Amino acid sequence: MMRGREVVNRLAAMLLLLALSPVQAARAEDGYALWLRYAPLKGEALARLRTFAPRVEAAPGTVEGPMLAVAEAELKRGLASLGAPAQTKGAIRLDCPRAGGGGDGAFRIHADGKRRLVIAGADHRACLYGAFALLRELALGRDPLAVALDEHPAMPLRMLDHWDNADGSVERGYAGRSIFDWWRLPDHLDRRLIDYARANAAIGIDAVAVNNVNAPAIFLEPRFIARLKRIADAWRPYGIRVFLSARFSAPRDIGGLATADPLDPGVRRWWKAKADEIYAAIPDFGGFLVKANSEGQPGPQDYGRSHADGANMLAAALGPRGTVIWRAFVYSADDDSDRAKQAYAEFVPLDGRFADTVIVQVKNGPVDFQPREPFHPMFGAMPKTRLMFEGQITKEYLGFSTHLAFLAPLWKEALDAGTGRGGTVADAVRGGGMAGVANIGSDRNWTGGHFDQANWYAFGRLAWNPGLTSADIAREWAAQTFGRDAAFLKAVVPMMLGSRQAVVDYMTPLGLAHLMGTNHHYGPAPWVCDLPRPEWNPCYYHRADAGGIGFDRTASGSDALAQYVPSVAAKWRDPKTMDEDVLLWFHHLPWDWRTRSGRSLWAELVHRYDRGVAAVDTMAATWDAQRAHVDAERFADVAGDLRVQQREARWWRDASVAYWQSVNGLPLPEGAAPPAHNLAHYRALAFPEAPGI
Amino acid sequence: MMRGREVVNRLAAMLLLLALSPVQAARAEDGYALWLRYAPLKGEALARLRTFAPRVEAAPGTVEGPMLAVAEAELKRGLASLGAPAQTKGAIRLDCPRAGGGGDGAFRIHADGKRRLVIAGADHRACLYGAFALLRELALGRDPLAVALDEHPAMPLRMLDHWDNADGSVERGYAGRSIFDWWRLPDHLDRRLIDYARANAAIGIDAVAVNNVNAPAIFLEPRFIARLKRIADAWRPYGIRVFLSARFSAPRDIGGLATADPLDPGVRRWWKAKADEIYAAIPDFGGFLVKANSEGQPGPQDYGRSHADGANMLAAALGPRGTVIWRAFVYSADDDSDRAKQAYAEFVPLDGRFADTVIVQVKNGPVDFQPREPFHPMFGAMPKTRLMFEGQITKEYLGFSTHLAFLAPLWKEALDAGTGRGGTVADAVRGGGMAGVANIGSDRNWTGGHFDQANWYAFGRLAWNPGLTSADIAREWAAQTFGRDAAFLKAVVPMMLGSRQAVVDYMTPLGLAHLMGTNHHYGPAPWVCDLPRPEWNPCYYHRADAGGIGFDRTASGSDALAQYVPSVAAKWRDPKTMDEDVLLWFHHLPWDWRTRSGRSLWAELVHRYDRGVAAVDTMAATWDAQRAHVDAERFADVAGDLRVQQREARWWRDASVAYWQSVNGLPLPEGAAPPAHNLAHYRALAFPEAPGI
Repeated sequence: MMRGREVVNRLAAMLLLLALSPVQAARAEDGYALWLRYAPLKGEALARLRTFAPRVEAAPGTVEGPMLAVAEAELKRGLASLGAPAQTKGAIRLDCPRAGGGGDGAFRIHADGKRRLVIAGADHRACLYGAFALLRELALGRDPLAVALDEHPAMPLRMLDHWDNADGSVERGYAGRSIFDWWRLPDHLDRRLIDYARANAAIGIDAVAVNNVNAPAIFLEPRFIARLKRIADAWRPYGIRVFLSARFSAPRDIGGLATADPLDPGVRRWWKAKADEIYAAIPDFGGFLVKANSEGQPGPQDYGRSHADGANMLAAALGPRGTVIWRAFVYSADDDSDRAKQAYAEFVPLDGRFADTVIVQVKNGPVDFQPREPFHPMFGAMPKTRLMFEGQITKEYLGFSTHLAFLAPLWKEALDAGTGRGGTVADAVRGGGMAGVANIGSDRNWTGGHFDQANWYAFGRLAWNPGLTSADIAREWAAQTFGRDAAFLKAVVPMMLGSRQAVVDYMTPLGLAHLMGTNHHYGPAPWVCDLPRPEWNPCYYHRADAGGIGFDRTASGSDALAQYVPSVAAKWRDPKTMDEDVLLWFHHLPWDWRTRSGRSLWAELVHRYDRGVAAVDTMAATWDAQRAHVDAERFADVAGDLRVQQREARWWRDASVAYWQSVNGLPLPEGAAPPAHNLAHYRALAFPEAPGI
Repeated sequence: MMRGREVVNRLAAMLLLLALSPVQAARAEDGYALWLRYAPLKGEALARLRTFAPRVEAAPGTVEGPMLAVAEAELKRGLASLGAPAQTKGAIRLDCPRAGGGGDGAFRIHADGKRRLVIAGADHRACLYGAFALLRELALGRDPLAVALDEHPAMPLRMLDHWDNADGSVERGYAGRSIFDWWRLPDHLDRRLIDYARANAAIGIDAVAVNNVNAPAIFLEPRFIARLKRIADAWRPYGIRVFLSARFSAPRDIGGLATADPLDPGVRRWWKAKADEIYAAIPDFGGFLVKANSEGQPGPQDYGRSHADGANMLAAALGPRGTVIWRAFVYSADDDSDRAKQAYAEFVPLDGRFADTVIVQVKNGPVDFQPREPFHPMFGAMPKTRLMFEGQITKEYLGFSTHLAFLAPLWKEALDAGTGRGGTVADAVRGGGMAGVANIGSDRNWTGGHFDQANWYAFGRLAWNPGLTSADIAREWAAQTFGRDAAFLKAVVPMMLGSRQAVVDYMTPLGLAHLMGTNHHYGPAPWVCDLPRPEWNPCYYHRADAGGIGFDRTASGSDALAQYVPSVAAKWRDPKTMDEDVLLWFHHLPWDWRTRSGRSLWAELVHRYDRGVAAVDTMAATWDAQRAHVDAERFADVAGDLRVQQREARWWRDASVAYWQSVNGLPLPEGAAPPAHNLAHYRALAFPEAPGI
């Protein structure tokens, strides 16, 4: 008895120490763990896992390798954290015979009837993804021996694009500094970069472009290649290949050449040598991401060459070793027809002229990551070209990281849209992939707002399987990140699902777009109309005057509608019958136009602003009721951000309403509250400290 | 037996969970805890503490208050972490009767013979500082009942100056982004700001200027005052008052006035109203820090007024509520005599003209935070003016955060110097204080390099007591931060103590200064001589030509020497007898000048470069031998930084030697290795990605 007592006392003392130590105390729940939190299971789920009590083992004859080692280590770590230290009653067998990660990562998980779960696939990548998938199922409380999965990725490239600069700043970043500390690399690799790779592997991300598409050539210099090599080496076991944003004028900028003409033999030799230099350091280098002849970036058109000429030249330099991802986000200072039309107009005629290792990357909508846009007409329109879907995870136009907006429904709207050319948008990118502009920074919780983690998660999950529903993704994310309690999920999942529509409503209802403040895109500025290029001005997009509001993109206007196939265009041609969520995207309508609600367009507009504000109030109340379900720190963080969102939703509504009134001279609809301030007040606000520029 | 067993098993399982959980695992030792780590005591020290086993209690009749609550909480937390959960065998009594923290914080700690330690002082601030002092003694392994301290701060203001910008960047910051997330304030206060206040209180820091001295007026706008209020409220219980860097032209920039003339009644009213507005939000606001008429900042001279006119106008606005700290760091584009002379020349004639609530802040040396400078001649030269010592904790000129350089010896050189005017430099600032330019950022370990934490610590400790030795400070820091093992301290403390001299030797030996790269100050650039203002050029400082090297500051040159009293100047007048560490600061000497080593000046210069490189190699070897004493993560971090330092020390030495050879045409001294590359190589290096600009 005495000896047992003694042990208990010692253990109790140790526990107390662990619990009380300031090192621990300072490290309460802070969001760092992301969806790899693996909080201990309870009740029945814990009992099932303990009964299973598996060891983790490789199938006989399996070749060892670093990627398999990661799969094993993650399983052990995750199982222990969930509450089942490895024993030998059951087994999780990793049956992925071939080393390396060259396969697509398709995996199956099934019980073999001998108290054994088998994760099987062609090579180690299958077991990497299978391990994380199994952990996700277990973290959701599923019965281990009932797990049965048969999955394969929907597209080859599931990618994050970091708009991170060499100096540590992040264009459109709202979560602190860049996670890439180029200054300390290659000597020091921050451990965050390993946890970043773990989090990505868990959702199937397999490629990362590490630097801003507005790229200086410096990233192609030897010291940066040495730094990138350190990252590539660290990420390889997690199945992630690195890409570089490459400046098209690099042969001139740093190569000492007089031209960057893609047809110039010296330029072609320079890029080939540069590619060889990179591959000598990083044998599995992914390739180049290029923003060319767009917003001031250099490109092949500077030499009278086409986008295809430029992309194919780089593809020749990479050879079969890598991929050129060429962005279709272009708009020209000379074309005053309709910015929404220009990418299609420039690229579709080039269909069939791009090399097989070139992928053209197309934003979800035809303008620029607005709270709502119709899908981009290029999807499906280039059948002989590999296309990639570009979404923006960082919320440049959706309230930065202080507004709660779950973006899966935004991406799903585009991915699920039928192009009318034989499939959905998701189908159109199955040969290419999906790239998301990352929302990740050095903030302890990675993304600034805790709920912004959900957007990173959702983007990866959708790239793996665009068929997942937003609700499924929200539920599995919330359960892993916060807690599995049914009451919590029942409240929070619907809150997430409605959050993006709330932003649309209080910022840009009814298909309005691009009404944000100049440069920083913070807050409302529909009055701005004096910027040098027409398409930089909010007034270019809303076209409001005493007679009406909206951008006529029908045949009587810019006819951007004609870029869609007739069956699709038909859905949007008639303002009386169409989906009013994109009404003013396609039509200029009088203020007294009768919407389907029976309200005038003006009354409907105000109604939607008010609906958005009310939705945020409801979100705040919903969150406030979750205090018992969430740790104090994250609860307070989210509550604080929701207070910001409540305030700013009102600001958006009031400033917009005040401005529209100054244009249409109409009284407020019955029952609508007047703006808190006059228009002059809102116009005078300035925010030179706004982040992300 | 069975029940005891069961408990043991459950406890063991819990322990394992704690140990294995990824949340914990991701949070191994990362440096976040700073000197508040309070690692569990062992052996005799632990036994003594457990025998003492104190509860923490307030003396009967003590008024409660938030600052006393912090003292109690920190004691309990620290004691538990050290291994002595509160019991009632002994007691730590807090005997600080008065509430608030208006006193100077003097405290006594003594045992009263009844197994009770008493921390006593006038008000709660005394118990705050006493609590942290006691924890430091305990963390160093001292016998609790033998602790006897009687301390008081040497000067009223013990301050950190953050050169942090509103956008989160940090001028001369090498540790990530600013810890001040203005964007989320006031709704969200990052918990880092609480741990920051704890760390500061533990070393006696009582004031913080939160924004860059190159300040935009925006920080004086209402939304920033609201944000600052949130910080001030959070820091008040830790005894820290906030200061703002104020832009002198604010009345014009944001006040709508046509002038910022300090004698203009409208300007005076504007500042008075602004001060009232701030004090309404923050009753204990510290005051304004001002950089005026320096490096392009606006100031009273723009209106033909003096520094005293400007400072006194702001002092009148603050009234007795606060302090104006006016920087003496000025140099003029029009004065081509000697930059080192200008602050003295401008300020000393104003002695006696500054209001009592104005403090003039003087850098440790007359130029700008170089690896070594003689002390600033203003110290002691303004007996009717309160002076403050400004040191730079962030290593703008000493290798950023990747070079290990412990700066206590640098500051001690200045603080201990006799001014010849009745005391030391430390004596000259006893009525003012010490301000350190912070090296703190959002990096997880706060300061980029782990050893840079020691500089933050040392600055605070010296401001509390300039009489502490560098060795004592190094030892107590290393023991608290890494470990108490005698063998570890015996190796690491001397390494720290010699580290700053190593930097001097490989960068700017023998009194050379300001030879760093343009703007970013990264790496060697002694060849730069084409910048528009003469004193921006390294060639201005070294004045090397075929005939010799060094800046003649004697009567035959700029006669800066005459700014020191004769007894001090005499020590530096004769190059044959003086301290050669500042030889070329004061003298221009021929290359074949015979130094006291017997070597020619040229040979001595090369010898010192080599000595610096060798010292870094020794530091790296010393650290490498500490693997067993340090956790793996921090061990690897420091080892990685030392690799950088080894490489860059060679770069400094080689580039400098190559350049001097190009000037003096001399062969290398016997046995000296040739530079690894030719001069053209070093001149061609460019680092647009260098941090901190």
